[in-house]
Amino acid sequence: MTISMATSPQTRLFQNTNLFNHKNKNKNKPFLPLSFKPISIKCATKLDTQHSTTPLHTQSQDRVFNFAAGPATLPENVLLKAQSELYNWRGSGMSVMEMSHRGKEFLSIIQKAESDLRTLLQIPSEYSVLFLQGGATTQFAAVPLNLCTPQDSVDYIVTGSWGDKAFKEAQKYCKPKVIWSGKSEKYTKIPSFDDFEQNPDARFLHICANETIHGVEFKDVNYPNPKNSSGILVADMSSNFCSKPVDVSKFGVIYAGAQKNVGPSGVTIVIIRKDLIGNAQSFTPVMLDYKIHDENNSLYNTPPCYGIYMCGLVFEDLLERGGLKEVEKNNKRKAEILFNAIDESSGFYKCPVEKSVRSLMNVPFTLEKQELEGEFIKEAAKEKMVQLKGHRSVGGMRASIYNAMPLAGVEKLVAFMKDFQAKHA
Amino acid sequence: MTISMATSPQTRLFQNTNLFNHKNKNKNKPFLPLSFKPISIKCATKLDTQHSTTPLHTQSQDRVFNFAAGPATLPENVLLKAQSELYNWRGSGMSVMEMSHRGKEFLSIIQKAESDLRTLLQIPSEYSVLFLQGGATTQFAAVPLNLCTPQDSVDYIVTGSWGDKAFKEAQKYCKPKVIWSGKSEKYTKIPSFDDFEQNPDARFLHICANETIHGVEFKDVNYPNPKNSSGILVADMSSNFCSKPVDVSKFGVIYAGAQKNVGPSGVTIVIIRKDLIGNAQSFTPVMLDYKIHDENNSLYNTPPCYGIYMCGLVFEDLLERGGLKEVEKNNKRKAEILFNAIDESSGFYKCPVEKSVRSLMNVPFTLEKQELEGEFIKEAAKEKMVQLKGHRSVGGMRASIYNAMPLAGVEKLVAFMKDFQAKHA
Repeated sequence: MTISMATSPQTRLFQNTNLFNHKNKNKNKPFLPLSFKPISIKCATKLDTQHSTTPLHTQSQDRVFNFAAGPATLPENVLLKAQSELYNWRGSGMSVMEMSHRGKEFLSIIQKAESDLRTLLQIPSEYSVLFLQGGATTQFAAVPLNLCTPQDSVDYIVTGSWGDKAFKEAQKYCKPKVIWSGKSEKYTKIPSFDDFEQNPDARFLHICANETIHGVEFKDVNYPNPKNSSGILVADMSSNFCSKPVDVSKFGVIYAGAQKNVGPSGVTIVIIRKDLIGNAQSFTPVMLDYKIHDENNSLYNTPPCYGIYMCGLVFEDLLERGGLKEVEKNNKRKAEILFNAIDESSGFYKCPVEKSVRSLMNVPFTLEKQELEGEFIKEAAKEKMVQLKGHRSVGGMRASIYNAMPLAGVEKLVAFMKDFQAKHA
Repeated sequence: MTISMATSPQTRLFQNTNLFNHKNKNKNKPFLPLSFKPISIKCATKLDTQHSTTPLHTQSQDRVFNFAAGPATLPENVLLKAQSELYNWRGSGMSVMEMSHRGKEFLSIIQKAESDLRTLLQIPSEYSVLFLQGGATTQFAAVPLNLCTPQDSVDYIVTGSWGDKAFKEAQKYCKPKVIWSGKSEKYTKIPSFDDFEQNPDARFLHICANETIHGVEFKDVNYPNPKNSSGILVADMSSNFCSKPVDVSKFGVIYAGAQKNVGPSGVTIVIIRKDLIGNAQSFTPVMLDYKIHDENNSLYNTPPCYGIYMCGLVFEDLLERGGLKEVEKNNKRKAEILFNAIDESSGFYKCPVEKSVRSLMNVPFTLEKQELEGEFIKEAAKEKMVQLKGHRSVGGMRASIYNAMPLAGVEKLVAFMKDFQAKHA
């Protein structure tokens, strides 16, 4: 594959004119050759808030609309901020990537990230927030290793491939049981309380709050009430983390890979009720022991510093956009537009998921004329809408429309869909 | 802590004049206000090789010399390249942080990173290269989990704190034995072959090739020849990985956290002989099973994409600098200058490590007048030389002078040391 470097950093930064709309005092001065004294452009202190409130529905010309399921599109202003301080973080003389994780600079970054996340999700003080590595897949093992003895029963509700993977991994460390599975209906549903019977002795009840591949999502009203003696509900929230307000106090453990809504891959966030920490099985790898990370404020060994920094920028941005209620409003609006387009296509497009539990994040759909799917994806890519292919295990299309997907991206996709249908109906 | 944003991205990029020394066609044109049509500056294709060969002994004015033990200083040109393409990777319309790990763009990145690393270290084809998460600390568990049964004996040579941690973690998964320890001599030595007796039944022999905290390093002549029936030598090379040529074929497993010589934190590289893959203990977390990662080319779940990309940039840079022989030459020169300054200070500075096994990467030293250490560190920081404090477990000072530490940084430190001595002798 040959890829050429299309734009220089200068060109690119200049293109994002909304970012630097301070008074340009050099307007009439000659453009200095680069080897001359640097042009002094002072950043107004207002800069941060200015570009952080750039409406999500605008986007620079040279960006694509990236519908990938994760890693996924990030807020444009967050990327620009990261770019602007990559080489020298706020006058520290170094990149965040170079900072000692025990130095005051990085400590300020991780502490602010945690504090902003606590504000966003209103995390009660009896919960710890851990910044870890290894993705949700590592947590599939860590949760039972930390919460169970090998003899403990555990209940799993399996609404998709990720819940199924979590269940399978748990078999190594406890006695998990699938008490409800959507497999026979191709994972298009979420059960209601009456649909399953919980084991009263189960140590915890596990759900995957949003199934990225199948596009089914637990809504607030669907969260099951754990009937087990411990009363612990555990949720993998990887793909809808911070996409809406969540009552954290309902959960014993929430875990999420960052690479959907809140950052790049390589960071996993665990929110855990403190009384559940400290009972890891004896052969738990030290890196999977919540106690170690809790005692060391996620700094037992070197954490994924740059990823945590990026998450921090996203948290800051979400707060500046009005918090998770506003974010949810925006997400609902985007999802509504897209689902309406599908539902009003007279069957040209189809979404298999039961309406009441359709994910606001991942929208899988198929074409009635399956043979056109390749063309759909190809033509969309020509229009700078990429990563629309469905997961290899289910086929069809999937549009992931996480927090950072601008409304304009969804509108463009819908316009394209209507156009495509008109051409091929 | 209040930190202000000192420079705008434009200002900073302009300061690094060596990066964009293409012909400036806009020399006599007026500087356009930012809301106008973007100034078209074409990056010459020569750009990459030009800035990649920026001599390591130069450094921009606004950088500090960062002697941190890891995360650590990165090559300036690598940072600038990363900055230039952070927002839009080579015309793809997205950041590397946003790319699907299964898309063609990221696949090209990870494949090139692996290929360049194979070239750098001349990794034989019967070895797999894995890009993982969790740091060396995760490998402390993964190595015995993958290579041993719980009944297997294993030999550990403990030359410092990291080797000791590796030994302790292994106790959960096999029957490790410390066959040599430098603890009684405060980890200032590396044993020679006659100093220890290997267990002929041991499954493998484990060393830490460079002890970051204590500054002792196995030299080529020191690598022990495993006498166990399996003939397997395992090395934690976190802090001297890619700092010099290594005969990979001597090892069964080499593992290394990236955050010293080859990238940011959050990436762990494992180089493993393929025949050692596939025998993980039954309760090994799937994320610690080498087989899973090998079969999936490190893409079983979402890898730390941006970190891998950064490692790739560093590998590319190391190749362009002439490969690891050249890198080692440079590292030797830097270490020599610093150790000479210590040894020739008439005892004002002292390095406790035995001369023949002094690390080229981490140089711990103390002051004869211990009460001056605080002042030394403070004064050095004023001169933009930071992170010189020794590890909290050993005190004193430590200068980490990894690949990316410019010669100028070491020269400046040495000049400062002489100056400081003159003031306080």
